[in-house]
Amino acid sequence: MADQKLLSTRQISEHKTPEDCWIVVDNQVWDVTDFLDEHPGGSAIILKYAGRDATKAYSEVHAPSVLKTNLQPDKFKGVLDESTIDDAWLKPPPGENHKLLLDNQKPPLETLINAHDFEVVASKTASNKTWAFYSSAATDLITRDANKSCFDRIWFRPRVLRNVRSVDTRTKILGGDFKLPLFVSPAAMAKLIHSEGECAIARACESKGIMQGISNNSSYTMDELRTAAPSASFFFQLYVNRDREKSAALLHQCSKNPNIKAIFVTVDAAWPGKREADERVKADEGLSVPMSPSKAQNDKKGGGLGRVMAGFIDPGLTWEDLRWVRQHTHKPVCLKGVMSADDALLALKAGMDGILLSNHGGRNLDTSPPSIITLLEIQKRCPEVLEKMEVYVDSGIRRGTDILKAICLGATAVGMGRSMLFATNYGQEGVEHLVDIMQDELETAMRNVGITSLDEASPDLVHTGDVDHLVPASRAHPYARVIAKGRRRGSKL
Amino acid sequence: MADQKLLSTRQISEHKTPEDCWIVVDNQVWDVTDFLDEHPGGSAIILKYAGRDATKAYSEVHAPSVLKTNLQPDKFKGVLDESTIDDAWLKPPPGENHKLLLDNQKPPLETLINAHDFEVVASKTASNKTWAFYSSAATDLITRDANKSCFDRIWFRPRVLRNVRSVDTRTKILGGDFKLPLFVSPAAMAKLIHSEGECAIARACESKGIMQGISNNSSYTMDELRTAAPSASFFFQLYVNRDREKSAALLHQCSKNPNIKAIFVTVDAAWPGKREADERVKADEGLSVPMSPSKAQNDKKGGGLGRVMAGFIDPGLTWEDLRWVRQHTHKPVCLKGVMSADDALLALKAGMDGILLSNHGGRNLDTSPPSIITLLEIQKRCPEVLEKMEVYVDSGIRRGTDILKAICLGATAVGMGRSMLFATNYGQEGVEHLVDIMQDELETAMRNVGITSLDEASPDLVHTGDVDHLVPASRAHPYARVIAKGRRRGSKL
Amino acid sequence: MADQKLLSTRQISEHKTPEDCWIVVDNQVWDVTDFLDEHPGGSAIILKYAGRDATKAYSEVHAPSVLKTNLQPDKFKGVLDESTIDDAWLKPPPGENHKLLLDNQKPPLETLINAHDFEVVASKTASNKTWAFYSSAATDLITRDANKSCFDRIWFRPRVLRNVRSVDTRTKILGGDFKLPLFVSPAAMAKLIHSEGECAIARACESKGIMQGISNNSSYTMDELRTAAPSASFFFQLYVNRDREKSAALLHQCSKNPNIKAIFVTVDAAWPGKREADERVKADEGLSVPMSPSKAQNDKKGGGLGRVMAGFIDPGLTWEDLRWVRQHTHKPVCLKGVMSADDALLALKAGMDGILLSNHGGRNLDTSPPSIITLLEIQKRCPEVLEKMEVYVDSGIRRGTDILKAICLGATAVGMGRSMLFATNYGQEGVEHLVDIMQDELETAMRNVGITSLDEASPDLVHTGDVDHLVPASRAHPYARVIAKGRRRGSKL
Amino acid sequence: MADQKLLSTRQISEHKTPEDCWIVVDNQVWDVTDFLDEHPGGSAIILKYAGRDATKAYSEVHAPSVLKTNLQPDKFKGVLDESTIDDAWLKPPPGENHKLLLDNQKPPLETLINAHDFEVVASKTASNKTWAFYSSAATDLITRDANKSCFDRIWFRPRVLRNVRSVDTRTKILGGDFKLPLFVSPAAMAKLIHSEGECAIARACESKGIMQGISNNSSYTMDELRTAAPSASFFFQLYVNRDREKSAALLHQCSKNPNIKAIFVTVDAAWPGKREADERVKADEGLSVPMSPSKAQNDKKGGGLGRVMAGFIDPGLTWEDLRWVRQHTHKPVCLKGVMSADDALLALKAGMDGILLSNHGGRNLDTSPPSIITLLEIQKRCPEVLEKMEVYVDSGIRRGTDILKAICLGATAVGMGRSMLFATNYGQEGVEHLVDIMQDELETAMRNVGITSLDEASPDLVHTGDVDHLVPASRAHPYARVIAKGRRRGSKL
Repeated sequence: MADQKLLSTRQISEHKTPEDCWIVVDNQVWDVTDFLDEHPGGSAIILKYAGRDATKAYSEVHAPSVLKTNLQPDKFKGVLDESTIDDAWLKPPPGENHKLLLDNQKPPLETLINAHDFEVVASKTASNKTWAFYSSAATDLITRDANKSCFDRIWFRPRVLRNVRSVDTRTKILGGDFKLPLFVSPAAMAKLIHSEGECAIARACESKGIMQGISNNSSYTMDELRTAAPSASFFFQLYVNRDREKSAALLHQCSKNPNIKAIFVTVDAAWPGKREADERVKADEGLSVPMSPSKAQNDKKGGGLGRVMAGFIDPGLTWEDLRWVRQHTHKPVCLKGVMSADDALLALKAGMDGILLSNHGGRNLDTSPPSIITLLEIQKRCPEVLEKMEVYVDSGIRRGTDILKAICLGATAVGMGRSMLFATNYGQEGVEHLVDIMQDELETAMRNVGITSLDEASPDLVHTGDVDHLVPASRAHPYARVIAKGRRRGSKL
Repeated sequence: MADQKLLSTRQISEHKTPEDCWIVVDNQVWDVTDFLDEHPGGSAIILKYAGRDATKAYSEVHAPSVLKTNLQPDKFKGVLDESTIDDAWLKPPPGENHKLLLDNQKPPLETLINAHDFEVVASKTASNKTWAFYSSAATDLITRDANKSCFDRIWFRPRVLRNVRSVDTRTKILGGDFKLPLFVSPAAMAKLIHSEGECAIARACESKGIMQGISNNSSYTMDELRTAAPSASFFFQLYVNRDREKSAALLHQCSKNPNIKAIFVTVDAAWPGKREADERVKADEGLSVPMSPSKAQNDKKGGGLGRVMAGFIDPGLTWEDLRWVRQHTHKPVCLKGVMSADDALLALKAGMDGILLSNHGGRNLDTSPPSIITLLEIQKRCPEVLEKMEVYVDSGIRRGTDILKAICLGATAVGMGRSMLFATNYGQEGVEHLVDIMQDELETAMRNVGITSLDEASPDLVHTGDVDHLVPASRAHPYARVIAKGRRRGSKL
Repeated sequence: MADQKLLSTRQISEHKTPEDCWIVVDNQVWDVTDFLDEHPGGSAIILKYAGRDATKAYSEVHAPSVLKTNLQPDKFKGVLDESTIDDAWLKPPPGENHKLLLDNQKPPLETLINAHDFEVVASKTASNKTWAFYSSAATDLITRDANKSCFDRIWFRPRVLRNVRSVDTRTKILGGDFKLPLFVSPAAMAKLIHSEGECAIARACESKGIMQGISNNSSYTMDELRTAAPSASFFFQLYVNRDREKSAALLHQCSKNPNIKAIFVTVDAAWPGKREADERVKADEGLSVPMSPSKAQNDKKGGGLGRVMAGFIDPGLTWEDLRWVRQHTHKPVCLKGVMSADDALLALKAGMDGILLSNHGGRNLDTSPPSIITLLEIQKRCPEVLEKMEVYVDSGIRRGTDILKAICLGATAVGMGRSMLFATNYGQEGVEHLVDIMQDELETAMRNVGITSLDEASPDLVHTGDVDHLVPASRAHPYARVIAKGRRRGSKL
Repeated sequence: MADQKLLSTRQISEHKTPEDCWIVVDNQVWDVTDFLDEHPGGSAIILKYAGRDATKAYSEVHAPSVLKTNLQPDKFKGVLDESTIDDAWLKPPPGENHKLLLDNQKPPLETLINAHDFEVVASKTASNKTWAFYSSAATDLITRDANKSCFDRIWFRPRVLRNVRSVDTRTKILGGDFKLPLFVSPAAMAKLIHSEGECAIARACESKGIMQGISNNSSYTMDELRTAAPSASFFFQLYVNRDREKSAALLHQCSKNPNIKAIFVTVDAAWPGKREADERVKADEGLSVPMSPSKAQNDKKGGGLGRVMAGFIDPGLTWEDLRWVRQHTHKPVCLKGVMSADDALLALKAGMDGILLSNHGGRNLDTSPPSIITLLEIQKRCPEVLEKMEVYVDSGIRRGTDILKAICLGATAVGMGRSMLFATNYGQEGVEHLVDIMQDELETAMRNVGITSLDEASPDLVHTGDVDHLVPASRAHPYARVIAKGRRRGSKL
């Protein structure tokens, strides 16, 4: 390069007008005055850096050689004398407002563009304990991770040349109309990540027209949530208390609250799972929730919130008890946590209004089957269930494509739990933003697969050949069922 | 933030009473006096840090923004002047007792919450040689790792709404009653990791009501173990000596020791495997064991303890010899190390009382089949074996879910070897703690799969579709069996 | 070693002639005068380092011990005194011209030897935005990565002892003769990586005798490309505009341009996919293209060029519209973007001249099937399509072996898009170099598989057993198709 | 700990006799005088460190707590004053001879205990070019890596309680007697890694009783090798020259050399593969070999030795030419490089004496099938080949278990190429050591699988369920074979 003259920052900063404009890129100083009008991106962006270092902004949109290629050699003025760099030089240009983010600060909401982003931000900005409680799952995390990877192993069979100008994601759930086949899965203690907790979620669901499941271990009561979002639709996720009267009282509250559209009786948490990340972090023993007798504590097993908050739940619940539930409510009753086609059939027989296929986000029994595999088992073994009863799916939903796959395979709607908690990190706005993202992803997936209404979603639009071997074909194991010797005869010690 | 006044550590530490309480979080100084009573976790935990830096304790339970959100702006007092930090400031608060752990120090036993934790601690705190000997396995470690991963690829089929209030893990093994379907697999030289070695294990098994397998290469004699744990139940794992008289003498000792409930004849170690990690570390040549003529030595192949300690074992042992064993004992005789359905059938024909499916923890022949695959082979090809003989499984058991899967597929009980050695790192207490953990995990798994007694465990509760292709369907390979040309005619060189 | 005398750099550099030649290797100083004539690689290369440090050049071709083995002990003169190393010593030898490459400088073209190399160089030397736009794909990148990995999982069945002295890669595409069964897949805005953009590609295709697909979003008009490469063959990739007149005008231009051999109507981009890497980088809002109304902009979803440049495309395009296309052109019409055997059959029925199996490089719908899987689906379900219509494949082609596999399975030719853009980084020469590489790889693969002409390529030369489970066997999903309850009845909110 | 008195190195080193012996472990100073006699490992090893720091030696065999546990508190003398550490203190104890190994120095041969070790050492100590030439393989290395991993995915079905006291690995190959079913696969230019090259290999094979394949591109002539190892058995790997006379002359040399037992005609290298690592490193242009006209050179494709050394090979070789070979030799003729059952059948028909299943170590055509898969294809489709002709396997053999699996599946013997070159790094001794290792591994595998002679090896001892889907079942691809439109009619450009 012709002239390697050293130029001080002061010399350079004198050329800062549209009539005399120098910029620095990669330490090289260029006179771009004549180029201002030719710049395809307009002159304003260049003038912002007049007499300044434009390297960062430049490299975001241009390859290194562009300046050299587009300017005459005489426009090269010299090389920045780095020894003259001072604080003034390093100050960002006027109007520039790059907020320096610390590692534990939340980035601006609009920079989050998918459900994973919310998870990453929560992992850095929530308290250690909140992160441990929300993100943890049973023992080796096999089910938690398979919940998602099984969706990823189902392929679309997209159809082309179909008019997809307008697409409609509206869905009926238990007779109600919703804008999306997506609801917020009930999850405990949303206040841990944001002071408004479930209230923020409720307002977001109300404004976006989707349903919210309220956990028995919610940080707010169902009445508080109704106050927060008067026109929202909820279902109540009941953990049946060892003390039946307590549960009856809650069902009574449900009856009086017109926003509660259904009762979901939890059946996938007969016993709290071993969530080791949660156990390893000490719990704040002041923590409690208003609709259950649970209170956080640390004991010899660790600080597991998931475990101690579940202490009141009755592990003795059976199909018989569902009749008792029916006696205490006139609202639709669904089961939350079915993990086999066999129990789906029993639920149908028991007259349930719907079932939510769920393994509790992999939080209770590791190597319990991913929910989407259970849906495939129902398709394979007892598809009539899908015609006679609403079937929902949660655990592992992260993408609009996941939603569409579940719907194609027969689900009425799907739930997202953890992701919604992570979005609550930004309050109501965060949840709204995530719902918008999911809607956009779902609509894009529907269009590109060639449908405009969820009625058109069918199993023929997916190929499940990569996971079919994970789906049981019958009630019995294909190998012989044998009574192992000795085990039968175990007597009292 | 309003006021960024710098405050010295001395200034801050003056505000340390319930009436005037400042704390520092992330270098920001807050007056939390009025907040003490409102704190959901109680005031005590805050007062512990009165006039001090509470950042670490705070971030364990709260998100960064909580203070700012909950306190009035005027409670912000300024910023910690970091230049004033001194030793006094850094001292932990009274009552705080964070033991600084060096990398090679054992963490407190109660912080270990699963079998993997014991392995991690042993890898850091046992001697290089002990770790190499215990953890090593044959050549490329394929079988060692598959032993566990095959369990992970078997899925549960959990059933819901079953009364699982009380769960019973008791099991009969060879006519004896035990609290768990779990025993300690025989493993050599437990003294390497703890001076009490197998005696510590024996006391733990006695107190927890489970059986212990005593290795022929135990650091203590079976009489010493009986003395240590007078009411314990043992089985003796016999390595048949080239010198049959030596083995006869050991069988004689077994006869006189009422705590020995059975003889397990080892058949999966016809020849010592090549455990490369063990070979690469020099052995302490003073090492020996009381019940075998083995003595550690280093030779041109390396320092492999596993190899030299096995030098006395007779590679000529055959089915015929089992009659000889029977002649020297009146106790039940089982085989330890069956790796195929074919040999399971032969064992049944030979009148064995039980078989332990084992590949020696992957230590002898790499790419020998994982034990749970052999159990599946028996289910597929000769399920009658499971009805007529007790079948045990070891190699790869790390979780309560692993135990339950083996039981579902027909095992009477399972053994854990390496994990128990790693737990012995903490002596008797360590082993007891591990057994408690396994019991808790097993009970949790039983409840969440929907059963309360091991009698209910059946193949129908698991799905093996992801590993079924690894299970041979017949005695012969599906392709033609052909006599390769030339090979037959190999003559003397 | 005998003599460890320290020798200064000055002392060593005095011995720099053919009559008295010392060199330094690994700090050891050797007299190699007598060895000059014996050196198998000639004396010149040694003399270049006479009196200098030859360690680097030496270690590229020799093992450390060679000198010591080949020279008499007395030729060892001593050890380099490292304290005497100065700038003069470190200067490279005369004639040496190791260009110091900065991380963002392009290495010499001849050092790039495969398609991956071009990608690596582009990732380092293109602008952030160009790299993001070219390399990004839909959401989780599953289809983008499977496009390639599915080729890798198809095995050859090579035949030996066939005369493969001369090999012929010539191919007829839509009646035209080409030197390779390879064309440049249409891709938008090649100018982002090189000022000559698609013109450079056109000249390269002209000189190499292959076809180029021109994107509707090309940086240059089809007339400019014809001027750049007057004897080149093109096809035009039409994005049908919501405003049909605009598309009609383009088809009119195609009619007048004799170099345009066919129209490829794009059908795999009904709606722009969510390419997150592209969204995350700000776009240069001055950017536009001459043949479509698209103009770059940043909005609340991000800076996705792929998305905003697609804004004019009509998502309402259907099979009916193909008749309208036929009315506006007399040239062959093909579909670009078929992803199922069902649509391949419909295309045949609609009288198309060919179909390009493509998922848009995984850029539009994640988990849409890899193109080679769609080709297998056609082979399995409707092989007649391959006899009656030309079928092309793109998405994932990186190697000559990939080309050959697609041809074996019935494709007429394949396209490469991204790789060609990355090659355009070096202008016309870069694209020519990549085409040469692909030709060489294809010829090598053909010879080693045992064929000399593409007519001999057949499915029998590949084994697809590792991916066959990913190929749907029929139009319907194997499980029952069931109308999920409730979903059907979604009514207006 | 009671007394933390600081002790200087001088103070400590005064206590260095059996009567007064202190040692330092982890900076703690202990009086071990009374313990000397009790030490299970003997007193000598302790006395070696009398008055010194024994930390390293100690931690190799003992856990950190052993000293503290075994000694009385009063034996703790204080803490090492680290400020007094000087060079004398750091010197190793007398007799200690820890050779400090530089990264590019070969470790002592006896510390290498498997084939992988030889590869690791060669990667660090051979010249860049030698390593690139030996280790490289075609393009994406898929076949190279699958050669090994397919062996790893074949499981044994070990049988127990069989008398395996003495085991016999002797094998007949083409009528000759060998100590192992293992030969050295022919590989080019062994001199690159050791001056004695193939001569060293020949001497090792002679002493160990195994066969050596001599490459046409050997660094030494077959007569030189005969001189080096007068009683060795060789086969000659012929690359048929475009100039047939040259090959005839070589066959004539073979006829006169009684040590040459067979001719292996190479058929898996019709065209040199693209070995990119080899191309990327400049070749020493002085390099040549005595039995072919090849000469190293660098050209525009790079410095690929594998490519330029293959320039003379006739790509026009066909089955017809095998008759020509027969006319020029009376020795057995085999094919080297069969990759399909179809060609195995043709070889049988052509009257070959044997075939070596090989893909040239993955060096020629990437995604050509692993040799063990080809052997399975023969088992599945034409097992009669194995009865009528000797079949050998190379490519991917690294373990004794690999050898046994190939033999079980019908191979007569297996070859190792690359590993033997890496062993040649240590000359004759290195190759002998590797052969000893392979024999030990093979014998261990035979015993643990339950056989004592290779005649007993049968397919029933392995389970191939994890790779069976990779094996073609018939000559034709299962999907329809269709003539793609257009491709047939390619005419001259």
